[in-house]
Amino acid sequence: MYRPRTRAGPEDRGWGCAVPSTVLLLFAYLAYLALGTGVFWTLEGRAAQESSRSFQRDKWELLQNFTCLDRPALDSLIRDVVQAYKNGASLLSNTTGMGRWELLGSFFFSVSTITTIGYGNLSPNTMAARLFCIFFALVGIPLNLVVLNRLGHLMQQGVNHCSSRLGGTWQDPGKARWLAGSGALLSGLLLFLLLPPLLFSHMEGWSYMEGFYFAFITLSTVGFGDYVIASYLLSDTRKPNRDWQILER
Amino acid sequence: MYRPRTRAGPEDRGWGCAVPSTVLLLFAYLAYLALGTGVFWTLEGRAAQESSRSFQRDKWELLQNFTCLDRPALDSLIRDVVQAYKNGASLLSNTTGMGRWELLGSFFFSVSTITTIGYGNLSPNTMAARLFCIFFALVGIPLNLVVLNRLGHLMQQGVNHCSSRLGGTWQDPGKARWLAGSGALLSGLLLFLLLPPLLFSHMEGWSYMEGFYFAFITLSTVGFGDYVIASYLLSDTRKPNRDWQILER
Ligand SMILES: [K+]
Ligand SMILES: [K+]
Repeated sequence: MYRPRTRAGPEDRGWGCAVPSTVLLLFAYLAYLALGTGVFWTLEGRAAQESSRSFQRDKWELLQNFTCLDRPALDSLIRDVVQAYKNGASLLSNTTGMGRWELLGSFFFSVSTITTIGYGNLSPNTMAARLFCIFFALVGIPLNLVVLNRLGHLMQQGVNHCSSRLGGTWQDPGKARWLAGSGALLSGLLLFLLLPPLLFSHMEGWSYMEGFYFAFITLSTVGFGDYVIASYLLSDTRKPNRDWQILER
Repeated sequence: MYRPRTRAGPEDRGWGCAVPSTVLLLFAYLAYLALGTGVFWTLEGRAAQESSRSFQRDKWELLQNFTCLDRPALDSLIRDVVQAYKNGASLLSNTTGMGRWELLGSFFFSVSTITTIGYGNLSPNTMAARLFCIFFALVGIPLNLVVLNRLGHLMQQGVNHCSSRLGGTWQDPGKARWLAGSGALLSGLLLFLLLPPLLFSHMEGWSYMEGFYFAFITLSTVGFGDYVIASYLLSDTRKPNRDWQILER
């Protein structure tokens, strides 16, 4: 009967000890965030300011060339464009499709949801789809973890199998295990981080660094959605990718 | 010396057994994805089509009202707007700021990166910021996990502490543990899923369901970025949120 009470002793002390070290940890966390904030602010703030200025210049030219347009009309058009873009609509004149919610886009969205990457270049706009999305993720995210876990085990077993075979032929299991492990790590890095950018540069016209950035942001499941593969299949506004870069300058 | 070989036996069998069940699991995974694809396609495709149509109608009206604008000029303007929006620029006339990469935006971006939520309403556009982002995430994501883990332990200890106290007064440790556990679960649900939407509806003008959807998408670290808090601080194009909904119709 008294056991729970005597057990409470060390737990009490544990709580008292854990709080100050947690405060320290939180300080380190906040300092790290402050570092990130400062660096991103410095690096991106200037570029965004430059982009704003160049866009305002473009707008000014447009207003001078098309004298029938006035500032409020243009601003309301800009708001409309951004809203329609976020809704996944087709924006350009020559397309009459379903925008970005075609079959392939829906599949892509499903994958990005259950892997928790969530690129967000597509997101549900109807309440029904949002509700379904919640239930879909509730089952899908654990299912995805089970599948990844199983594939990981299978690869682990493959590596063990290789290392035991090597160990058998070389008579040195320790070295064989080390070799198989480093071989697996290297091939994993090559397969998921270093080779895909080459493929993307061919398929998407990205630079190697852009492809590497995309691969890292995807594998870490951060998924900003600034780069998305097969965008020419998913979206009409992204199709003339290279034209845009010309327009941008 | 022969040990590695005899050990290889069950691993071989394990591999042979694991493959068919993995194939079955992959089938279930693909079937689940197909289900999601079908439902999202049905629910969202129609809405996106409607949004495309309404946007095309708006464009048509605009072209009729402003006769000096032609179709190619408007399309090139639309591309410019989408590109500038993605670059995080200020789009409206009355703003001359740094767009969305202000200090608060950079902090928000840092948090969203290391929690792997990655809303993506902001994403780095310069190569320097992208490289820094990769290193920032490489250290920051584990750091974030350590912090969350520590906070989780602290809460666990708090719950144990409560349950042992309850057990001491009630003389029934089993029931006390059950009560403390369910109390913790309930308060966690309330704190992170059910109460925040009320706050969002006050701060952001969202409906309860929208707030719940945002809370779920954030806690699951999917982070589509379609809903983002404090958007009136982060972005100028999002400021007139209610006006947009009027414009949309
Ligand atoms: K994410
Ligand atoms: K995301």
